[in-house]
Parts: sequence; C-alpha cells; structure tokens
Amino acid sequence: MSNTFGKFFRVTTFGESHGKAMGCVVDGCPAGLALDPLDFGADMARRRPGQGKFSSPRKEMDEVEILSGVFEGVALGTPIALLVHNHDQKPQDYAALKDIFRPGHADFTHQAKYGIRDHRGGGRASGRETVARVAAGVIAKKILTQLDVSVSTHVYPPLDEEMLQHIVNEKDSLGSSVKCEIIGLKAGIGQPVFGKLSADLMGAIASIGGVRGVEISQGIKAATMRGSHHNPIDKGVLGGISDGEIITLQAHFKPPSSIGIGGRHDAIIAPRAAVVVEAMAALVVVDHIFASFSDTMDGVVRSYK
Amino acid sequence: MSNTFGKFFRVTTFGESHGKAMGCVVDGCPAGLALDPLDFGADMARRRPGQGKFSSPRKEMDEVEILSGVFEGVALGTPIALLVHNHDQKPQDYAALKDIFRPGHADFTHQAKYGIRDHRGGGRASGRETVARVAAGVIAKKILTQLDVSVSTHVYPPLDEEMLQHIVNEKDSLGSSVKCEIIGLKAGIGQPVFGKLSADLMGAIASIGGVRGVEISQGIKAATMRGSHHNPIDKGVLGGISDGEIITLQAHFKPPSSIGIGGRHDAIIAPRAAVVVEAMAALVVVDHIFASFSDTMDGVVRSYK
Amino acid sequence: MSNTFGKFFRVTTFGESHGKAMGCVVDGCPAGLALDPLDFGADMARRRPGQGKFSSPRKEMDEVEILSGVFEGVALGTPIALLVHNHDQKPQDYAALKDIFRPGHADFTHQAKYGIRDHRGGGRASGRETVARVAAGVIAKKILTQLDVSVSTHVYPPLDEEMLQHIVNEKDSLGSSVKCEIIGLKAGIGQPVFGKLSADLMGAIASIGGVRGVEISQGIKAATMRGSHHNPIDKGVLGGISDGEIITLQAHFKPPSSIGIGGRHDAIIAPRAAVVVEAMAALVVVDHIFASFSDTMDGVVRSYK
Amino acid sequence: MSNTFGKFFRVTTFGESHGKAMGCVVDGCPAGLALDPLDFGADMARRRPGQGKFSSPRKEMDEVEILSGVFEGVALGTPIALLVHNHDQKPQDYAALKDIFRPGHADFTHQAKYGIRDHRGGGRASGRETVARVAAGVIAKKILTQLDVSVSTHVYPPLDEEMLQHIVNEKDSLGSSVKCEIIGLKAGIGQPVFGKLSADLMGAIASIGGVRGVEISQGIKAATMRGSHHNPIDKGVLGGISDGEIITLQAHFKPPSSIGIGGRHDAIIAPRAAVVVEAMAALVVVDHIFASFSDTMDGVVRSYK
Repeated sequence: MSNTFGKFFRVTTFGESHGKAMGCVVDGCPAGLALDPLDFGADMARRRPGQGKFSSPRKEMDEVEILSGVFEGVALGTPIALLVHNHDQKPQDYAALKDIFRPGHADFTHQAKYGIRDHRGGGRASGRETVARVAAGVIAKKILTQLDVSVSTHVYPPLDEEMLQHIVNEKDSLGSSVKCEIIGLKAGIGQPVFGKLSADLMGAIASIGGVRGVEISQGIKAATMRGSHHNPIDKGVLGGISDGEIITLQAHFKPPSSIGIGGRHDAIIAPRAAVVVEAMAALVVVDHIFASFSDTMDGVVRSYK
Repeated sequence: MSNTFGKFFRVTTFGESHGKAMGCVVDGCPAGLALDPLDFGADMARRRPGQGKFSSPRKEMDEVEILSGVFEGVALGTPIALLVHNHDQKPQDYAALKDIFRPGHADFTHQAKYGIRDHRGGGRASGRETVARVAAGVIAKKILTQLDVSVSTHVYPPLDEEMLQHIVNEKDSLGSSVKCEIIGLKAGIGQPVFGKLSADLMGAIASIGGVRGVEISQGIKAATMRGSHHNPIDKGVLGGISDGEIITLQAHFKPPSSIGIGGRHDAIIAPRAAVVVEAMAALVVVDHIFASFSDTMDGVVRSYK
Repeated sequence: MSNTFGKFFRVTTFGESHGKAMGCVVDGCPAGLALDPLDFGADMARRRPGQGKFSSPRKEMDEVEILSGVFEGVALGTPIALLVHNHDQKPQDYAALKDIFRPGHADFTHQAKYGIRDHRGGGRASGRETVARVAAGVIAKKILTQLDVSVSTHVYPPLDEEMLQHIVNEKDSLGSSVKCEIIGLKAGIGQPVFGKLSADLMGAIASIGGVRGVEISQGIKAATMRGSHHNPIDKGVLGGISDGEIITLQAHFKPPSSIGIGGRHDAIIAPRAAVVVEAMAALVVVDHIFASFSDTMDGVVRSYK
Repeated sequence: MSNTFGKFFRVTTFGESHGKAMGCVVDGCPAGLALDPLDFGADMARRRPGQGKFSSPRKEMDEVEILSGVFEGVALGTPIALLVHNHDQKPQDYAALKDIFRPGHADFTHQAKYGIRDHRGGGRASGRETVARVAAGVIAKKILTQLDVSVSTHVYPPLDEEMLQHIVNEKDSLGSSVKCEIIGLKAGIGQPVFGKLSADLMGAIASIGGVRGVEISQGIKAATMRGSHHNPIDKGVLGGISDGEIITLQAHFKPPSSIGIGGRHDAIIAPRAAVVVEAMAALVVVDHIFASFSDTMDGVVRSYK
C-alpha cells in the first residue's frame, strides 16, 4: 500500500506492466512551473527498452499525457496526473507462466502476499513500473533547474561491451552499477534524524527494482579507512544535512533474473535504470528543499511575507 | 523536522547529547504486550559507551524510565513515552568548540541549516541520539518475539584488536561494518513500490549516523555477478517482499570524525552501533507486518471479526 | 498539496472541472475484492448533475474507467487508478469570467494562493472534484459490505419543493443538510487522541465543498442539554471510539454561490452531495478498521498467522 | 495509534491522567524562536482545574518542563519535548470504578478496543490529555505572533451563572460552546482538496473530547439561508483557502458525563476547553502556513535563496 513517495512533493504511481496504462499523480508541484508533454520525451527515451543491443526489444513510444494540473502550459498548483499507455501488451508471451513462479522474480512473493497476481508479466514488480517514476522525476528536475541544482547519472563502472555480448549470447545476464551526482545544492538541506538527506536518497534509490547495495560519498570503502584519511574527503552530506559540496551516490544492481528463456528482457539493468536513479534522487532533493523552508524563524517570516 | 519513524508503529525521538534527557514516544504498540523498565537493560548496555577499550569513556547508566502507556506491567495501547536522563554532561569539555566547526562533524551543516546549534556537543547529531532508537527497538523486538521473528547483528568482518589498538595509540579512528540477520519472517511482508521491505530496511539503517553504504542479500557483489550464479542465492526479499528466507543486510560505517583531539570519543563505530542497526531493522519489520494485515480481503475479514 | 486522503486506505484525487478528466488512485484496497466498472454506475448517477429540476443541467455520463489494479474482475492489491473523462467541457460559457472573481467562489482565494487559476470554471474548487471521491467511496463501501457495515445518507430535513421552485425562479439558491448513518460497525474502532473516529468523520465531511457545519450524535443540541438527559442518548462514538451503536452525523451546506447569472449551476447542494458524504464517511471507516488490526497483541498474532 | 498531529509542525502527545506525566514532542518548530518555561504559565492556568466554582477541584500546578530542543532560551530546530508531571494522583478515588463502566465515558470503548484500560481514571480519554495540546499550542501561538496572526477564544454564548449553580447543586452537568477567532491570516492559506483550512480546523477542534458539533463562518445557519443573503457574509475561508478576512469557528460541547457521583469533575466543559480550542486552531494554522511556502515557483525560489 506504499505507492506514494514524498511528504511535500508527493508522487503516487499506478499501473501494471500489462494493464492499460502506467501513470502517476504529482501533488505539490508549485504553481507557475512551465510544463509541456514534450518535456518528458528525452528522459522517457533514456528509460525506454529496445534502444540498445543488450536491452529488451519491447518497443513503446511512452508518450506522456498530462491529464490535469496544467493549464495553458503552466502548472496550476493542483495535482498533475500523468498517463503513459501500454501499447505493446503481448500477454500471449507470458501465458505459459500462469502457473509457474519464475526463479528470482517477485512472482512468488506477490502471490504469497496478495493470494493473486497478474501473471501476464511482473505487474507492479515489472521494470515498467519505473515509467511513472521517470515522468515524475522530469518535473522534479525542472524545479531543481530553477534553483540551479542538477542531478545526473551514468553507468559506472563503464560496460565492457565485448563481455556483455558474450553474456547475451549465452542467454545469461550481468549485474551493474549507476553513479549519481547532485551538484549545486546549497548547504543546510536534510531532515535529521530519520529524514537525513543521505538516508532518504539511499532509501529512495534502494526502492528501484534490483538494487542490492547503495553507497554515498566514499561508500563501503569508508568501512576500511582511517579517520585521518577519510575526514578530508567525506563530502556532500554531514549529519544528514547537505554541506554545499557535490553529493555522490552509487547504486548497485543485481543481474536481471530472466535468463535462458524467451520473452523480452534486458541482459543488464544499469543502462536503462540510470534515469530512474536520477528521478528518485531528484524527487528526494525537491522534497527536502521544500521541507527546509520552515527551518528557521527568519525563513518562516521571509517566506510568509 | 523528521524525528518520527514508521507509519503503523511510530517512534518519535528527542534529546540533545548535552541536554537534560533523551527519549522517545512509541505510538502504536499493541495493548497487552508485557513491558518492564528492566527489559531495556541489556540493549542499553550494548549501546553504552565506556565498555570496551576502543570506546568513549563517557559512562552513563542509561536507565530507561517509562512515563506513560504501561499500566501494571502491560502496554495499554496508548503512547509509550520513554526517558533516559543525561547524567554525564560535561559541557566544559566542549567549551573550546563554541566557535569552531570540527572537521567531518555535522557542526557546520547544523549551523548552516538552523543558524544556531548546541555547541556543547553534537546535539542531535551526536551518537547519543541512538539511545532512543535502541529503547524503541527493544519494544519492537519484544513484539517480534511473539511472532517468532528474530533480528540480530554482529560486527562483521570481525575486528583486528591489534590494529585497532595501534590506531587508538595514534589518536586515529577506523571504519567498520555490521551484519544484520532477520530470521523467521514469513513470506509476503513488504509494501511495493515505494515501501519495499528491502528499501525501507536500507533507508532506515542509512539513517544511523556514520553509515556510508548499505547492502542486502548479495549486496554490491551482485553488481559484478551473472544471473545464472546470482539467481539461486538471491534470497530474503524479492520484489520488495519477504520470501520466507533469512534476510541479510550489511551496514558500513565511516571512521569516527573525532581524531587527534581530547574529549570522549570512539575509535570505531560498529561495536556500539550493532544494537542500533538491530533496533532500526526491528522497527521496520514491525511496521511492515502491521501494514500487511489489510493485504487481502480474506485477511481483513479475519482480522476484523 | 493535500490531495491524498487516508493513511491505510489511501485515495489520491486529481482533475479540474474543465480539464481532460477527473480521477483517483486508490492505494491499499485489499487483494481479492471483486470490482467491475459497472459497480460505480449507481453512485455516479446519484452525484450526476442534471437529474433533478433544481440541479445543474450539465450532463455527463461519468463512466468510470479502471486503469490499473484490477485483473479479471478482482483487485490485485496494487493501486487502483480510476478515470472519469470530462465530456461536457464548454469553456466558452465561462470566458466572461476570466478577469472577474465570482462572489462567494474560490476564484479569489485560488488566485491569491497560486497566482494562477483555471478560469474556465472552478477547477479543483468545482463540485465536479467530488466525482473522484464518489468513485473511491464505492470501493470503500464494497469492502464494508463484506464486514456487514453500511453507510447511508439522505437529505434531511427533507426539501420543500414548492419553496425551492420559488428560489430557482428568483435565480437564487438555498442552504441544505445531509444526514449520515453508519450501521453495523463493531465497538472498538477509532484512533485517539488525534484520530478519533468522530473527529475524522467530521473533518472528512467538512472537506466537502460548501460544508459550514458538522454534527455527530446529538450535535449542537448537546451544547444546551443537561448531562442527565444527554448521557443516555449520546451513542455511536465515545472517547473517539465506536461503541457498537449506530453512528449518526449531519452535514450542513451553504447555499450555492452562483446566483443571478447564467451557466450551469445547482440551486441547492444536498441532493447531489448526499452520496459524497456517504463516500467520505465510508473512506474514514475503512481507514479506521484497517488501523485497528494492530490494536492488541492478540490481534496482531491472529492477523499475522 | 494517532497521537501525532500535523504534517509540517508536528505534535506527538502522551500520558494517562493518573500516570507519571503528560507531555508532548513538538517537531518542526523553527530554530530561533525564543522559548522559556514561563511562556506556558498563562495558558496552563486557563486550562487548569479548580479555578472556578464550576470546575473540578483537582489542583495541579502544571508546570511545563522543557526537556530538549531549546538552548539558552532559543529553539534549536530539533524536537522540543515538554513534560508536565501529574502530582495530584489519587487513584483511591477511582478504586470503586475498576469493574464498572461509567455511563457516557470512554471506559467501555477503550476496553472494547484494547482489552485493557487504566481504570484509575480516564487514561488518555481524560480531559487531562489536553495539557499537552495546550503546551504545544503555546509554541504555535508564539510563531503566529511573529507573523501578526492571532487566535483567540471565549465561551459563547456566555454562561448563566445562576442556572449553572442550580445544575451543580443537583449534581448534574451542562453542555456549552466556545467561539474561536483567527485574525490577521493572509489570503492564500489552505490545502485543497482534503486539507482545506476549514476542514482541518473543524476536524482538529472535533478531536477535543466532548465536541459534538463544529461550525465555521455562518455555520449551521447557512443551511437555511438563501445565497443572496449568505454570499456577502460568508467570509474567512473560501474553497478551503483563507481569504484574508477574520475566520470564525464555533465548537459545541456535550455536558460532562460524570454526574450524580463523587470525584473531581467539571459541571461544564467550555470554560476550561476554550484554551484547548485555541491551541488546536493555532496548530492547524501554523501547519498550513508552513505548507504554503512551496505553493508557487516564485515562492520556492524566494524561500530557497
């Protein structure tokens, strides 16, 4: 029952991979933000399958329709409902899977939880669920742009295409990682003790399917470092609050579970997931910025006037 | 402003390291749970400083006082307020720090955020804040015991005492790690897509001071594995929902920031933080179990009757 | 930014009166509940304009489309997105209103808040917003039916048709009231101290446009009664918790603001709002029932097993 | 499990009437607000029993102790824990009540819900619970003062002392009402559609023990008015958003349930509840003001810089 993300900038997502549509409702987008359906194109393309040789051949245009909250190209301050139709439903591909649980998939756990599942595909557990995250992330990034904050991601370490082709040939899959950088965020953003900026970023990224590890700043390496070496290079978030420096995170993905079988599947997660990591990081940062406006009495007086 | 953790089993903490007291309010503890001030002793002792040779010599008994919510040894269903007094306040140790920002500490970021800070110590950023987490964790673990679920932690990899002594002698500090195991949780617990059990566990553990990396199941290693190898050993949480197997997590801590100076400080975080990781994991699991009671119509009818 | 209602059974609504569509996402509907688009027909018809002689002639079929969360007629446990298209958009009716604030309407306050508004109509402040509430309420009532709890409403006191016709003739409008009864709810439902069942019911009903007063049990009359008379008849909710008796509420609506002008408007609110009151009450009751499953340790053990 | 109020300015209360202490944790108080234990004296005195001839003779000084969140008289931005000890516990007065349910009290419903209760008094259902609300309200009102917003209440209609004495003599009790005025709030505050300022005020006031009806603006009277008369006088909140005019509310209380018996009880609720209504209204207004800071992109940019 946890399909809403955020407290001040709230995103509620919906949609099964083989249902009619995916979508989300963004509640808390400030009025006055310019917003156009075309804004979503670039990020949706980055997430889209079928673009690289190691990605699922499932092809969807993934055009984002704005159902509400925008009037004459400008956000009204009311909830923005975004819809992406599922054009490429081929349930017959999955008919054979009705009565079996695919190893490593969420089929079994969904069935255990709900006593029912949409066997046509992963349902909500499908990577397609991230369409809605990416759409919401576009809005978050547009807000951040106006505050001179940027969030960017890339596959890291870079892929060895030769090895990857080898793995595809063997119908196997491979783990992967994404690095995320948040640049330009001013010092003072974060909500200790349970809403530390670091923790919320890590938790948000960990909510992306397939993540098995998340690091911030020096990451796991810090566990074997000495303070004298670590102190000077531990930047970005201190005590859960931004320090004005670049914030660096890394997300580690498992190899996709679908191997050795037909269907439309990726051999590796990171290339398409990078934009999803970016979206989640942007959602967290916007939420935390909005939360910070009542940090001080001076700030409250200034914001209210 | 984020000092409340959880949605169904809610913990609100308070207290600065050099103020009068630390404490928490636990809202949502089921009525009928037996609860005694002595229940807290063992875990508070595990968290207490001054017990090992690499820990801060600050000594506090950390007795937990129950202010409300318990009547004749039994939880009433009303909020349980727990109080731990700060007996060992020695602000004079910190007087010199009034106008300087300690490197690697949250002094600077707190000042940047609030324009004010309790310079007597870390305030809310102090490790002492975790007293309240541990106290709440005791209640969560008592509930889990009745459901035959256990949460345990240990320092891993184990410490090399010789090297650690060497580091203490040099007034330096060292990074460290804690492993956590959740045993006995039935399949079907977790709240996709933003409240995945894995993500909430990782985010909760990441909210502990000094955490720079969190892993679940095969962790970061998964990022370099092939699906054919990873699938069979990826257990505990699938699609954000428990599968009935043991859940394994690992938290990685930076080396403590306080080095080369006087005062009462730890040379390493993990030994005292293990019980905090345990507490946070227990809080998450209880919260998720309670959330699961309305997963199915059958469950709703059974629970309501 | 508060377009989500509920904590355990969560409804997020969206849509402006003259935009593409109204809708909602219901998060937390138990898996296994049977659900069909036809289930919504009766209640949507009760809310629909143009059915009585004192209602707005705006006619819309208000068919509810299920976009997600239901598979082969059964709820999956995933978010249920419901969509109702706005077919009858006639913005030209409102063109004259672009630069004026209609007296008694939310035009001015929306403009003051957001610096922008959808001048084509009330936007989110329009009564059409309640389409989504009613749709969500249908699901809540289906759940309650399985628990033998019913929620019903009617206009009370009843309307004097002759007087009402007189008011319509004068292009004026009239205030009105709706009575709500919740029958069959067992004792023990409610979440003191801030989530009392009475308070949440009253607050939820007060969130319907045009409500200026809400009463429970003996209501305002209680303020002039003596305890010896009031005690025996004060039933339904005591201390914020249900007592197993019938719960009675009354909502009081202002006269519609649109008077003396053209356009499509109601002369009275209650006849169409009754089903909205019913929906809000049902949402609250379901939310509170789900919250009650972890009230006692015995209940927790029983629900978990 | 709902002992936390507010989303941005959050108050968590605890304490049973005959336990050790009452208290609350205020999370989200802006840093820099001056705060002293003496600030609470006046409002605690207004709430205190034993001050008038129609009030319970239970006497407590109700001194508020600040446990955390304030350093050298200034709020740190961290959670502020407030404690009020229960000095005047006389459980023997209530011993006879162990096995009986007092008519009109919450004894029965608490027992039905939790299977256990603190029979020494009302526990959380006691009017003493409001001590914590009043304490938190003091902080909220100090914030509002800096924004030139005031919240005030008085008993209305005024009491007829002669009749009241007559009722006390007969060991009976009487219903009563409190009027609340919010003055100086600028236009644009409120969070449609589920967090309308009107609805949140009404719901918050309805959460005070004994409330059976709540009105805003013209209140119930509006239900019998014509639009032509009502429109011009319907001020304060339109469409759930403040319009810059005075906001008027009225709360209607039942007669106290305790009649015809010994013990320490009030014959009427309003005189002591007025300050509680004031507190709840102030909490809502502060919460809504903080929520409004991200209403517009211009506001976001201004607040962030």
